[in-house]
Amino acid sequence: MARIVMKFGGTSMAGTERIRRVAQIVRRQQAAGHEVAVVVSAMSGETDRLVNFCREAHALYDPAEYDVVVAAGEQITSGLLALHLQALGSKARSWLGWQLPVRTDDAHAKARIETIDSPALLASMAAGEIAVIPGFQGLTADERITTLGRGGSDTSAVAVAAAIKADRCDIYTDVDGVYTTDPRIVAKARKLKHVTYEEMLELASVGSKVLQTRSVSLAMKEGVRVQVLSSFIDDDAPAADTLPGTMIVSEEELAELEGLDMESQLITGIAADKNEAKVTLTRIADRPGAVAAIFGPLAGANINVDMIIQNIAKDLPETDVTFTVPAADLARVQALLAAHKDSIGYAQIIANGKVSKISVVGVGMRSHAGVAATMFKTLADRGINIQAISTSEIKVSVLIDEDETELAVRVLHTAYGLDTN
Amino acid sequence: MARIVMKFGGTSMAGTERIRRVAQIVRRQQAAGHEVAVVVSAMSGETDRLVNFCREAHALYDPAEYDVVVAAGEQITSGLLALHLQALGSKARSWLGWQLPVRTDDAHAKARIETIDSPALLASMAAGEIAVIPGFQGLTADERITTLGRGGSDTSAVAVAAAIKADRCDIYTDVDGVYTTDPRIVAKARKLKHVTYEEMLELASVGSKVLQTRSVSLAMKEGVRVQVLSSFIDDDAPAADTLPGTMIVSEEELAELEGLDMESQLITGIAADKNEAKVTLTRIADRPGAVAAIFGPLAGANINVDMIIQNIAKDLPETDVTFTVPAADLARVQALLAAHKDSIGYAQIIANGKVSKISVVGVGMRSHAGVAATMFKTLADRGINIQAISTSEIKVSVLIDEDETELAVRVLHTAYGLDTN
Repeated sequence: MARIVMKFGGTSMAGTERIRRVAQIVRRQQAAGHEVAVVVSAMSGETDRLVNFCREAHALYDPAEYDVVVAAGEQITSGLLALHLQALGSKARSWLGWQLPVRTDDAHAKARIETIDSPALLASMAAGEIAVIPGFQGLTADERITTLGRGGSDTSAVAVAAAIKADRCDIYTDVDGVYTTDPRIVAKARKLKHVTYEEMLELASVGSKVLQTRSVSLAMKEGVRVQVLSSFIDDDAPAADTLPGTMIVSEEELAELEGLDMESQLITGIAADKNEAKVTLTRIADRPGAVAAIFGPLAGANINVDMIIQNIAKDLPETDVTFTVPAADLARVQALLAAHKDSIGYAQIIANGKVSKISVVGVGMRSHAGVAATMFKTLADRGINIQAISTSEIKVSVLIDEDETELAVRVLHTAYGLDTN
Repeated sequence: MARIVMKFGGTSMAGTERIRRVAQIVRRQQAAGHEVAVVVSAMSGETDRLVNFCREAHALYDPAEYDVVVAAGEQITSGLLALHLQALGSKARSWLGWQLPVRTDDAHAKARIETIDSPALLASMAAGEIAVIPGFQGLTADERITTLGRGGSDTSAVAVAAAIKADRCDIYTDVDGVYTTDPRIVAKARKLKHVTYEEMLELASVGSKVLQTRSVSLAMKEGVRVQVLSSFIDDDAPAADTLPGTMIVSEEELAELEGLDMESQLITGIAADKNEAKVTLTRIADRPGAVAAIFGPLAGANINVDMIIQNIAKDLPETDVTFTVPAADLARVQALLAAHKDSIGYAQIIANGKVSKISVVGVGMRSHAGVAATMFKTLADRGINIQAISTSEIKVSVLIDEDETELAVRVLHTAYGLDTN
């Protein structure tokens, strides 16, 4: 017997038939002898509907009241899933965020979970009751509803799993696992049996939308084993512990699970992100404080700067600085930089929204030189120009022309030996 | 300065434009110097949508989970109204049923309010904050959400008014007050300035759908002054304390308000109810226990029997018993009576769903004989046959053919001098 948290997203909860399907999947885990808690999202479209009502009410809406409104979406689906489970013959009850409670800080609309009270929940589960918990919501110290920000239900699921010391947190999605790259781009993409938290974080942050980054960080911190698997499975499929999803684990566990294979696997996956834009400021004075003058205003406007490249030409007192920002923020960034032109002191802004960031990720690259070199050579062989480079311990990212995204991913997938046979 | 509870129904809360309109009406009360709490329903159609999801989930749904689902409707509108009020420049916050809390018994889906904690609410209102409270919802002793049953928001409003000792509870509806009869039937119907709790109860129970009966009972018990008025008012209309709605008050207050006029006003209003069905059981043995054998099974099935008439023909050991039930229950009633034919001992069931109950209501009839006689003569003069009669201290009801409803109401309205000049 294991203790399992299962999480279902909005697509899985969209309407009576789908919720009944979810209830059947949940019951199969219970039938396998497990204690089960389920974390649910709102029906797909519902959160958007509610957010829209808030925006119509007040352009600068009070996030505390916004939270009251949007948390209703998950409240509805949690009650409904409990009803569906009961209809199929299971004992089940909903536990709303304020009932457990899920304590958060008071950063409404983007709250962070602090603690989850588990004794009542565990007693209910031990008595054979399936616990249904709305994701995305919590409670402040002064008893007001909070929400965790979009996509927060993954984080709720991991937090619940940590609180009840679950053996596994199964995230059911509309894909059936984590792939070496997007299977829509590379037909030979391979589903990974295992991936480490660190790799998943890098993959998530560069465009692989399987899991929300925050949930992966939390799982890593709390040591929660997370499994990604598909909610579109057959009635006669085996229970989820034998399903071929992707398990996200620590490096130590991965070494145990994959043994020697791990060493031979340099690269775990390749991700592409078209949602970045490149900005270059020309002829910035090469003096202390120059870079701070650029990025201070952007940080103040809560704009997330990703890659930053500064080339110092030896003989000149000036330099160009290039960085990337989310493409959606590009107009705001240009306006901000124009407003701070005097304090920054640059000649020109050159913006380019038609770029793509390609990243190769793998814990194996720590012990192997040459990963970056392989990347540069592979792209160069196909005539793909690299506009910027950044690296982390387990990732190499390059910025290229957006039109060359698919070609780059495909040739790199082959070059690193990731293609299925 | 007064302390006022305002209540808005689902039609008034249906969408952004209407909620903004409600916010403007509320702000006018605040601008007049009053402390204001607002009780809101879910958007019209929303509760039906949520109830339907529950029914689809489980024909015999768990009312505790049903309550979790349907309470979300009022949660959404309370947050949205707070946002709209803030957008217009007011301080406002929502207080959910579990936050106040509104304590109820644990009869899920039809709970009764026991207490409402008011200190935090009063402190917030005293600080100039408009309190927005979702109607229809409460909390059990073991911290689970309850709902009060359909139409419970009127009851919530009256209960909040009682808890905070409000000077007035204004119920905004899609009519602008209580009339002497349905203005769609009688063009000369007159809007009443005042009506007593007792009269309102009788009018509500016989088909005048302005207020939910439970809310009127509670207002009477707690001495809450309730005003019915229209939510469709002009921007430049005066604040609600000078608006021409209908005030529901005690008999003592009515006497003060209307002085001698009250004595001259025999009848306050005339109501018609087409939702009754008549059942006659023929040749029942005239012995002790015979009537109990009929109504025991109906009470057991929670069927509300209204009028009961038993005619004892002197010389026979048998009698006919006639009674009325809600037309919607007629088929169940016939099945129940058929199942109990032996224990009751009757010859035949005669059922008639095409009847209408006409009631004349007025506290003035206590001190005046002849009210019933006027009714019978007026109907007889028009050839309308009376099939059954029942009376209470302030009401006379007769059962007639449904096709004659409008004619009966019109001639009685004239006969009792209720027509406008």
